Amino acid sequence: MKLKTLLKFPDMITLTPTELGTQKTHQYLLGAIGPRPIAFASTIDKAGKRNLSPFSFFNVFSANPPLLIFSPARSGKTGEQKNTYENIKEIPEVVINVVTYNIVQQVSLASSPYPKGIDEFLKAGLTPIPSEVVRPFRVKESPVQFECKVNQVIELGSQGGAGNLILCEVLKIHILEDVLSSDGLIDQHKIDLVSRMGGNWYCRSDKNSMFEIQKPLSTIGIGVDQLPEFIKKSNAFSGNELALLACIEQIPEMIGSTYQESLSIDTVSLVKDCLKNNKILAAWEILLSKK
Amino acid sequence: MKLKTLLKFPDMITLTPTELGTQKTHQYLLGAIGPRPIAFASTIDKAGKRNLSPFSFFNVFSANPPLLIFSPARSGKTGEQKNTYENIKEIPEVVINVVTYNIVQQVSLASSPYPKGIDEFLKAGLTPIPSEVVRPFRVKESPVQFECKVNQVIELGSQGGAGNLILCEVLKIHILEDVLSSDGLIDQHKIDLVSRMGGNWYCRSDKNSMFEIQKPLSTIGIGVDQLPEFIKKSNAFSGNELALLACIEQIPEMIGSTYQESLSIDTVSLVKDCLKNNKILAAWEILLSKK
Repeated sequence: MKLKTLLKFPDMITLTPTELGTQKTHQYLLGAIGPRPIAFASTIDKAGKRNLSPFSFFNVFSANPPLLIFSPARSGKTGEQKNTYENIKEIPEVVINVVTYNIVQQVSLASSPYPKGIDEFLKAGLTPIPSEVVRPFRVKESPVQFECKVNQVIELGSQGGAGNLILCEVLKIHILEDVLSSDGLIDQHKIDLVSRMGGNWYCRSDKNSMFEIQKPLSTIGIGVDQLPEFIKKSNAFSGNELALLACIEQIPEMIGSTYQESLSIDTVSLVKDCLKNNKILAAWEILLSKK
Repeated sequence: MKLKTLLKFPDMITLTPTELGTQKTHQYLLGAIGPRPIAFASTIDKAGKRNLSPFSFFNVFSANPPLLIFSPARSGKTGEQKNTYENIKEIPEVVINVVTYNIVQQVSLASSPYPKGIDEFLKAGLTPIPSEVVRPFRVKESPVQFECKVNQVIELGSQGGAGNLILCEVLKIHILEDVLSSDGLIDQHKIDLVSRMGGNWYCRSDKNSMFEIQKPLSTIGIGVDQLPEFIKKSNAFSGNELALLACIEQIPEMIGSTYQESLSIDTVSLVKDCLKNNKILAAWEILLSKK
């Protein structure tokens, strides 16, 4: 009983998936894990009929070999497999197209449960273009298209809501030149990716939502535990601010500097401004200057 | 030669991972697939020493069973496995904590390559709290914590840059009440998730970046191919706008309506405004009204 009490935190709820049921568990997983990148997956069946459908149980998982994985899950209600899964069992090839803001309504429309054999390229108003080394078509309007062969399909369960891992090895990467920066890499602002969240929500990655964090200034920061006591005990800084101060390799030695015993409101305010602008060394200089 | 010409699109570049090499392939995969959700993974070794590290090769892949997968990849340079991988081989349990804006600097600091045995909770200034059914600790400052047992580890390769799939079955979900909405689900604005993109870029999901798309108004939209010719041929609407018009179950019948043969600039402008505000039926009413 005592242990149980220790484990409880009054401001949190605790849920157990086996008690919640599949539908509720699904909602909490989708609401907490995000934003999720979207695979707009193009496949064909053995008769050559096209299918195009978006999946947000998706990510990159390895660079060598280059592997993308997505999961067309069994229907939560009927346990039935999706057309994309059936197609891959017939023709183990897929083109994964990325999803950007200027086609997101078309992608949403393609997610309608059209019957097998209906061509979602036509339904969504998108242009199929031939691939170089696989049979499924690419989406011309998507700025990055991955031609993949399917190495393996792993069924994660046999009930409704069970996922199926589709392990896709990337054979060719096609990139629209418009989204490249001058160094030849993909410009994170130009590509304008959208991703999936819980409920009906999507997230757009653009200048309003993107921010940069420099890798720690050295390979290994000193850590919050090594900050001087007068900083840690001041309670003046957030966890993020302490982490920024702690990502240097060693505390700078300032000639003639003494540690301040207490921090004035002005000092704290100046330090916070420096940290906001990622001026870590300037923040330290203020902290270590003489009173 | 003729086929080859047909396949080429002058505004795109085509890359082949086997020719690119691991490092470049890695950069293109990270630049195109995103934003990626972040698993802040807490593990312990058999001596009970804690490890805490972020991974963006991560997502949910199944609701029944509830499965999360992340991949600590082998070092691109040395081929060495990460501490998190080693710990899971010793103790196949993990707590996956979600990453929010107010701890993102701390998470970045924890990604420093500290030697095995160093406690990243201390380094990042985060609070370890005990789990209920697994041995690794939860991160108190994260608003959603998943206690998981590791069902399987799948090595994707043996060279530098190879991923390792860690299949994690969710046993308990802890959620901070502050991020719940009145219906008991996770409020997508309150949770303030951050995700990983290419280079040093992150994306914040908040009111500036999030937008809603209603599921198609009916279970199956008519599709862009079924739109009247005078709309499709007008060239007045973007792919997204056509998709919005096409997500209704059938074209509304307006008493006394006639299809307009050509669309005036005013009509087009009104229709676009309606679509921007997700007033699909109003857009149709304008399109189908008498001249």
